[in-house]
Amino acid sequence: MQSSPAIRIAFQGETGAFSEEAMQCLHPGAEGVPFPSFEKVFEALGSGAADQAVIPIENSLFGSVHECYDLLRVHDVSIIGELKLRIRHNLIGFSGASLEDIRVVRSHPQALGQCRRFLRMHLSSADVIAAYDTAGAVRELAQSGGPNEAAIGSTRAAAVYGLEILEAGIESNHQNYTRFLLLSPKQEMPPPVPDIRKDWKTSIVFSMRTNVPGALFKSLAVFALRELDLFKIESRPLVGSPGNYRFYLDVLGAASDKPVELALDHLREIASYLKVLGSYRSGKTQE
Amino acid sequence: MQSSPAIRIAFQGETGAFSEEAMQCLHPGAEGVPFPSFEKVFEALGSGAADQAVIPIENSLFGSVHECYDLLRVHDVSIIGELKLRIRHNLIGFSGASLEDIRVVRSHPQALGQCRRFLRMHLSSADVIAAYDTAGAVRELAQSGGPNEAAIGSTRAAAVYGLEILEAGIESNHQNYTRFLLLSPKQEMPPPVPDIRKDWKTSIVFSMRTNVPGALFKSLAVFALRELDLFKIESRPLVGSPGNYRFYLDVLGAASDKPVELALDHLREIASYLKVLGSYRSGKTQE
Repeated sequence: MQSSPAIRIAFQGETGAFSEEAMQCLHPGAEGVPFPSFEKVFEALGSGAADQAVIPIENSLFGSVHECYDLLRVHDVSIIGELKLRIRHNLIGFSGASLEDIRVVRSHPQALGQCRRFLRMHLSSADVIAAYDTAGAVRELAQSGGPNEAAIGSTRAAAVYGLEILEAGIESNHQNYTRFLLLSPKQEMPPPVPDIRKDWKTSIVFSMRTNVPGALFKSLAVFALRELDLFKIESRPLVGSPGNYRFYLDVLGAASDKPVELALDHLREIASYLKVLGSYRSGKTQE
Repeated sequence: MQSSPAIRIAFQGETGAFSEEAMQCLHPGAEGVPFPSFEKVFEALGSGAADQAVIPIENSLFGSVHECYDLLRVHDVSIIGELKLRIRHNLIGFSGASLEDIRVVRSHPQALGQCRRFLRMHLSSADVIAAYDTAGAVRELAQSGGPNEAAIGSTRAAAVYGLEILEAGIESNHQNYTRFLLLSPKQEMPPPVPDIRKDWKTSIVFSMRTNVPGALFKSLAVFALRELDLFKIESRPLVGSPGNYRFYLDVLGAASDKPVELALDHLREIASYLKVLGSYRSGKTQE
């Protein structure tokens, strides 16, 4: 069977970055298009340089990526999918190399920090050197490294650069997951349906008028009164505007489902700003 | 006047890190004690190796530091103060060096990324090299660099390592603030007072029983019914325990103020877990 041309999915980072690993889980066979910044990823979606995009939105250790929320707010895009990916760091080297041979380890400082315990126990005499990027460290190792050198990076980075995983899952804290969102250019909502779709969720961003006592409580009432479960609620103080907040909220059901639609109409009555970022099927967790 | 011995405050990172800058604002003249990880910072507080500690808890671009919330939950410490610090990146070099001379720039990849625009406009022909740490990059420059090299780091790093700020505030997004908390070993609550102290806040962490519809709504009701304003609410999904959440909440007033005390008692009735992390005066913002 002849396949159609691969869909092009923008991501931030280098080939082999965790965002690309997430992309491959969400869309096997898609063509990854790397960009140096999240802003460029969103611009690529707007200009048609990419058909879809994958961005990280929150991590179990480091919280929500407000920068991506800001870009979701100002660009005409829709969330169409999600995936939770376990961030598994691997010690990557040349085929046949063993731990005892390794004299130099390179990676992004955050990855090095997350593997501190392993490095101390098994590679205490090796030089630990910061790199700009986990995937970049693996690429450079493949291009110009030797058998006494290693890098810390994703399973995908080892595969794409033809290197070997010398030791898998070397991060100290295995409860390290990143939630990624799959984006497309702005989509029309599907037609309303009478009941809520149990495996869908809708993500919104909203603000309340200043100095409204219990404003957040009132905004949650629009969902609680309709017995709509929430997956996420987060307040974000607005810099330079004390007392003003933006809220991120994920609710069960699609925005076109009647109870969700009514709840959002109700929220619009009391909110000073509301944007529906998209409705999509709840994503699986990739271990 | 003879001063008493300086209070020792633990922080994560090297001398000159932003945490140390925050520490100096919170406690001028304190002695900073650097540790390689947040875990070690909390251990230092427990063992008496430090009198107090400063940790970052949330950033306006990168969200809450869940790792620090986890450590607050399991260690016997109290939050006793806070500060919002503008994260201002500076190009740092030797006295007399000018932008045109710089051939190499080193810093933590996150700092380099945040200064991408400046580097592209003014140092497009310089080599940009990753370092483990912003302060470490400045220290190494001072120790073994030359007049054609620069580092990106905090104002404090330039001062402590005797270098010059060649260009101040070179970050692309000036809305970059980190909220730091000042911690002490566990403190007794002050005695209850009849009314809420307007410039105090109390931080708590709590969980609700699974599958309680509208559980979050009910938990916010305990504050809304007493007209207690909230500064922060955030849900955090618990990894490996789908449908279970932990909530972070900051409320106006001290935990010993009567309305806050009653609200917390009420919350204990319906929560499966509740820990008061501390009551403290609302912190200023350091530009």
